[in-house]
Amino acid sequence: MRAVLDFLIRRFIVLGTFRLRWPDGSVSVYQGAPGPEIAAGFTDWAVVRKMVLQPSLAVGEGYMQGQIVLEDCDIHAVLDLLLSNAYQSGSSQPLLALQVWRTKLLRRLDQWNPAPRAKRNVAHHYDLDARLYRRFLDADMQYSCAYFPTGSETLEQAQIAKKRLIASKLLLDRPGLRVLDIGCGWGGLALTLARDYGAQVTGITLSQEQLDVARARARDEGLDGQVRFELRDYRSMNESFDRIVSVGMFEHVGVGHYGSYFATLNRCLTPDGVALLHSIGRLRGPSATDPWLAKYIFPGGYAPALSEVLPNVERSGLLVTDVEILRLHYAETLRHWRARFAANRGEIAGLYDEAFCRMFEFYLAGAELAFRRSGQMVWQMQFARAINAIPLSRNYLASPEQTRHNSLGSFEETRV
Amino acid sequence: MRAVLDFLIRRFIVLGTFRLRWPDGSVSVYQGAPGPEIAAGFTDWAVVRKMVLQPSLAVGEGYMQGQIVLEDCDIHAVLDLLLSNAYQSGSSQPLLALQVWRTKLLRRLDQWNPAPRAKRNVAHHYDLDARLYRRFLDADMQYSCAYFPTGSETLEQAQIAKKRLIASKLLLDRPGLRVLDIGCGWGGLALTLARDYGAQVTGITLSQEQLDVARARARDEGLDGQVRFELRDYRSMNESFDRIVSVGMFEHVGVGHYGSYFATLNRCLTPDGVALLHSIGRLRGPSATDPWLAKYIFPGGYAPALSEVLPNVERSGLLVTDVEILRLHYAETLRHWRARFAANRGEIAGLYDEAFCRMFEFYLAGAELAFRRSGQMVWQMQFARAINAIPLSRNYLASPEQTRHNSLGSFEETRV
Repeated sequence: MRAVLDFLIRRFIVLGTFRLRWPDGSVSVYQGAPGPEIAAGFTDWAVVRKMVLQPSLAVGEGYMQGQIVLEDCDIHAVLDLLLSNAYQSGSSQPLLALQVWRTKLLRRLDQWNPAPRAKRNVAHHYDLDARLYRRFLDADMQYSCAYFPTGSETLEQAQIAKKRLIASKLLLDRPGLRVLDIGCGWGGLALTLARDYGAQVTGITLSQEQLDVARARARDEGLDGQVRFELRDYRSMNESFDRIVSVGMFEHVGVGHYGSYFATLNRCLTPDGVALLHSIGRLRGPSATDPWLAKYIFPGGYAPALSEVLPNVERSGLLVTDVEILRLHYAETLRHWRARFAANRGEIAGLYDEAFCRMFEFYLAGAELAFRRSGQMVWQMQFARAINAIPLSRNYLASPEQTRHNSLGSFEETRV
Repeated sequence: MRAVLDFLIRRFIVLGTFRLRWPDGSVSVYQGAPGPEIAAGFTDWAVVRKMVLQPSLAVGEGYMQGQIVLEDCDIHAVLDLLLSNAYQSGSSQPLLALQVWRTKLLRRLDQWNPAPRAKRNVAHHYDLDARLYRRFLDADMQYSCAYFPTGSETLEQAQIAKKRLIASKLLLDRPGLRVLDIGCGWGGLALTLARDYGAQVTGITLSQEQLDVARARARDEGLDGQVRFELRDYRSMNESFDRIVSVGMFEHVGVGHYGSYFATLNRCLTPDGVALLHSIGRLRGPSATDPWLAKYIFPGGYAPALSEVLPNVERSGLLVTDVEILRLHYAETLRHWRARFAANRGEIAGLYDEAFCRMFEFYLAGAELAFRRSGQMVWQMQFARAINAIPLSRNYLASPEQTRHNSLGSFEETRV
């Protein structure tokens, strides 16, 4: 196996230097064009074998279990070099390519998320101790891509800017609007829309842990008359709402369920309603979820290409009225999370064991690099049911305080 | 046939009143819910027969040939009532539905536009006398959707605003940028980008008439050193450009050719280049071109759903970086064109015969209503080849004078 892995790595590294210590103590040096240098070692031959047979799981699992030991570098640097080389050399590893194909073939099955399984999948990640998330998220516990208008914002500022951007796209132009928040997390967005925009918000989640935290926050803020949190699946919703928002939840829906997802939006939205969907996506077309990510972090998850989303939108009866592509914002968000995680590692290690901490580090570093290097992005799609529900131009987005009435109504009224 | 048509119209009209005079002078009244009233007559039984057998052609052809006579209303009012009813009653006419299905099945063939056929199709509409277009377009001869930021702009102002919006999305942040304009029309946009932004523009068209006008304008303005117009098919382009723009031309490409269209953009764009595509689209999913429109105005033409465009973008290697959906702007543009056409009908009748004038009136009225009632829209899609070629936020769009450097560069530089 050593010879095979040696051969594969030698072909793979075309950029930078990779110094590898084998379990017997010998060292191989793989040298590409001038670039970053990293050094790592394998503690046993089992991980070497796995690197050949299951490369997409082996790096992450080897790191989690301590079979891959880094020397004077962190996991971010290692993944950065690997991804840079993957980008340069193409998908040159036949076994990796085979695994990707397997995943593509099975992706409908992997993403088959009926309500009970959806709840289990959500519990896997979101029912983790809220104290963990408090250690690396911002004060409002926004667990989704922040928005950096200039790039120099702090994480807290960028999460506030994100919520403002979303509120502006939701056209919250008068108090009392009924808003549904699908996948409300720990309630930060729902509470903000109630507090700052006077909305009547229903937030739904499938995570008991998130529900408890969100309800407690609403009570503490005295907003529990205005915000209601429920443990519910989106498919069970039948009530009518003026606005619907969903941030960082669509990644858990799965391609086979997009039809019923958009049917839910269309069913629950009033005829002059507005919806805003915020999700991770991929710029380079349909693919499959990374096997390690699906196994350890987001079972059933998938970040779709726009070409996978739009056919379902068009069939639903919803009109897509705007699409923004946020490119490097999530990379920057994840960089902040990774730094905070590192700064609070001691406390986090009091909650979860070392393998868990390394799993989380691997996840945060890998996700950041997927946005920098592998064509991942975040899309925000705005929907309406009526063609004149949204102002003529995007000018209303510049200042969320402007209401739609500034720019509607100048055209002759033409609806029958 | 009278009985059949009578039955179909009676089922169809659920809104407004339609007073119909048959060739024998008798009158039927079709009464729906309170709404607009229109009155029209058939001059002979041939058009009655055609209304049953080929309804999607019969209305337009009957109007062109004077077999449908309007009484105290114009063709816009008639089409408005028909489309309002179509929207209300669904596609209730079985024969019309059959025709739509036939068109859907044959649409690949209808839109098969290899270079020689593409040139013939373009000649059909764009080689019409430029004096005709001068009679209803704005002074710059912008033959595409204008942009009304507030809705109260004049047509001239809205066309200037459109060009500014496009220029801002093209990030023309320094003079001397090489710009390719695919489908340059009579040269208005190319000349503007050269004059106002210092660009070096190559404009290509397949219309000899447009080429002659565009070249003459460049000479007259003294811009012929900066702007070059050529009679060329997009597929033949191999030169490299910093920016590519294409406005109102993609409608002539045809679904079978989107792959080579986006391959052309990707091939001709520099690695840090930016492209902007502006086209009519449809919000309610893939369909087929109206048979009358395809026969008389735009042979080979098609306005795609976004779900038909994006798979080709993703495969091309281009990154989609923004999608704006302009909804009622083209309806308003067409309303202006229709009013100008009516005001100058006397002069236009000196260029073309009565049937041609009625054909044009039918086209302008029908197109306007397609944007108001039938889910047509205009999309502007921005592309780059590098993920950091576009500023982080859309703020740069607010003022086209701002350069990208205002908002780039704050994130740690991460490209290898």
